[in-house]
Amino acid sequence: MIDNFFRKNILIGVSNLYKQKLAINGKRLKDTLESFANFGRTKNNGVTRLALSEEDLHARNYFRSCCDELGMSVRVDDMGNMYATLAGIENKPPIVVGSHMDTVKKGGRFDGILGVAAGLEVARTLVEHKIQPQVPLTIVNFTNEEGARFEPSMMASGVLSGKFDKTVMMKKADKDGTTFEEALQSIGYAGDSKNRLTEAAAFLELHIEQGPILEREALTIGVVECVLGMVCYEIEVNGESDHAGTTPMNMRKDALFAANDLIAAIRQQLASLDEELVFTMGRMNVFPNIHTVIPNKVVFSLEARHKDPAVIKQVEKVIHSLPALSAKQNCSVKTEKLWGRDTVWFDQHICQALEQSAQSLGYSFKRMVSGAGHDAQFIASYIPSAMIFVPSINGKSHSEDELTTWEDCEKGVNVLLETVLALQSPS
Amino acid sequence: MIDNFFRKNILIGVSNLYKQKLAINGKRLKDTLESFANFGRTKNNGVTRLALSEEDLHARNYFRSCCDELGMSVRVDDMGNMYATLAGIENKPPIVVGSHMDTVKKGGRFDGILGVAAGLEVARTLVEHKIQPQVPLTIVNFTNEEGARFEPSMMASGVLSGKFDKTVMMKKADKDGTTFEEALQSIGYAGDSKNRLTEAAAFLELHIEQGPILEREALTIGVVECVLGMVCYEIEVNGESDHAGTTPMNMRKDALFAANDLIAAIRQQLASLDEELVFTMGRMNVFPNIHTVIPNKVVFSLEARHKDPAVIKQVEKVIHSLPALSAKQNCSVKTEKLWGRDTVWFDQHICQALEQSAQSLGYSFKRMVSGAGHDAQFIASYIPSAMIFVPSINGKSHSEDELTTWEDCEKGVNVLLETVLALQSPS
Repeated sequence: MIDNFFRKNILIGVSNLYKQKLAINGKRLKDTLESFANFGRTKNNGVTRLALSEEDLHARNYFRSCCDELGMSVRVDDMGNMYATLAGIENKPPIVVGSHMDTVKKGGRFDGILGVAAGLEVARTLVEHKIQPQVPLTIVNFTNEEGARFEPSMMASGVLSGKFDKTVMMKKADKDGTTFEEALQSIGYAGDSKNRLTEAAAFLELHIEQGPILEREALTIGVVECVLGMVCYEIEVNGESDHAGTTPMNMRKDALFAANDLIAAIRQQLASLDEELVFTMGRMNVFPNIHTVIPNKVVFSLEARHKDPAVIKQVEKVIHSLPALSAKQNCSVKTEKLWGRDTVWFDQHICQALEQSAQSLGYSFKRMVSGAGHDAQFIASYIPSAMIFVPSINGKSHSEDELTTWEDCEKGVNVLLETVLALQSPS
Repeated sequence: MIDNFFRKNILIGVSNLYKQKLAINGKRLKDTLESFANFGRTKNNGVTRLALSEEDLHARNYFRSCCDELGMSVRVDDMGNMYATLAGIENKPPIVVGSHMDTVKKGGRFDGILGVAAGLEVARTLVEHKIQPQVPLTIVNFTNEEGARFEPSMMASGVLSGKFDKTVMMKKADKDGTTFEEALQSIGYAGDSKNRLTEAAAFLELHIEQGPILEREALTIGVVECVLGMVCYEIEVNGESDHAGTTPMNMRKDALFAANDLIAAIRQQLASLDEELVFTMGRMNVFPNIHTVIPNKVVFSLEARHKDPAVIKQVEKVIHSLPALSAKQNCSVKTEKLWGRDTVWFDQHICQALEQSAQSLGYSFKRMVSGAGHDAQFIASYIPSAMIFVPSINGKSHSEDELTTWEDCEKGVNVLLETVLALQSPS
């Protein structure tokens, strides 16, 4: 835990000593990212590296060998999380940096891996300059952040933070019926629970933004102060199927028309709540989905994200008012809350340290929120945490088009390095 | 062809001779319908009897044996259409009655088969009363009306009328890859093209309404004067997929929101055209259809039916205006006409004869349109044709819930018998 004395010293910390001297090697960082991208590279220059797959195994082994070369000790916990530690002068709780190496199917070359490669580059820079950190530096690779092979996402950090039950998670199966536990054992990464991340001075996750804001505002660094709270509902509209040619309009119970009215009403009402609110109906299925048959059922998802729980409450109030709205189409509506999460606020002092680092490096930056979920949001429940964002070109992620410039990657890692140094307790 | 002399005599025809004496046997009709329902009966008392299936074969053989018992000659044409003929006093073009015996998957006990069983009941009534008709009476069973196994629907009547190409139809395959031609041969119903229906004095198709109008208006008989013209379009909205949590609302190109606006506009504009216009968006698919991803594509069908081609033209004008409408959601719209058909008007003199029959029997009736397609619409292109509707409870068809009361079935067949007699040329 960071005590007040340590916190006070963050801002005046040792980083000033190295500021002019230390910078990461952008070319080496690029080479490392390209090497990782070879583990599952797709023909369109994206990456498919599902958790605990053969590609993930190769990436893990490569990461381990890189850490071995730096003289770091590598351990693996019972969720397959990897921790590579560069010993500190003092044997105190480490500063932890990292992210995840798994991707979605046909994902990109930056999401997740950037945070792990960044940790490696920070360690390499320190070792290269023969700087032993005051406290240990640990690079973490969290297993199965994407949840693309085994649901839910952020599975391993969820278990570490007590949000998910390990026994339940071990039995989660992929589409071929292989369980998480079997996959972990088959690639030889079922480690020991005593290796779990239990305490640390700080956790820093560098990640691509996955949104368009930094690029649009021509900024380099996002200092992430929270992960947005959200709710996700499923809305089911029930009408009645009839022949599309023989049923007069005024005798229909058309579930698609009712859904059309509901979505229009939802959009209008939510748009008036707060301009920062984001809401999406990403999934919609129509039944029986035949052009000559009036739909008898439409099911769609509605998810909404905002940092203020009061706004989320208002969203839920709108959702609860929907059944009354559908009466005019002679249809009925059911709403079911699939899940929700509260906004997770990151550590203010680390956020300040990140701002200080960006400023000292002369990079443009802003405080921002994360609309996407990240391992840091779970780790933040027991370790002071924060995140750094770098721009995503066109806001793309989870896509082969995902792109962050090498220059922005380099700058993001320099902020990470600067902050790792700043967070060293004064010797 | 019905000449003017014959037409004039329709209304004053021989039916008066039999009016008080002849009536069909409702109990026997019910038994026949129940017997046919055994060929493919589902556990919910519906019927699955796909064209040229084993169930269809059994139904065909049963129909043939019933006709044999009546001394009718049965022939089969190259499309598998069956024709059972009761010889007339004069060897003139026959009066043809009938419909189809195939059903959709989990269809009902009345759609199609009612028209065939009705023909059988009319023939039985005549034979029972030792009445030889003046001109031959032919019962037809058209192959594959539903198109549920081999698309398109009304395949065989389409070939007879020259709308469809036989060679192309023969190669149409079901979902298992079996072609229409193979299926026809495998059940032994590939007949001779010289047996095709080429000329007739009239074609009468008794069918369930498949809509709610007769029931709602408490009427027994619908005299169908046309099959509605229609158009079917596919409308594709293209936007851009982005992360649902990280993309501000004003930077989205949400294809679902754009589709929502388009459908609202379509509904508003089409509703103002004519109250008899029916329109349906029965099919809608959203891509990638993931709750956390902003949809980049929505594809939906729009079909509209009306008897007046001018109204259909206005519908198409609305559809052609859609691309301009979608600009405000930053999405693009493509529209593609999948198909259309013109309104088919039935023979006025036969319609009058049907009205006359219903009236003479004391049944309530009205002129109406058919929103659904039927074999009669193709046959009408070369044989004077018309249809009789009987009420569908709750307007249901293509469903195990399909229901027409036995009493209404009986009344519909009595109208058919009465009209067959009326259409006899005077001896």
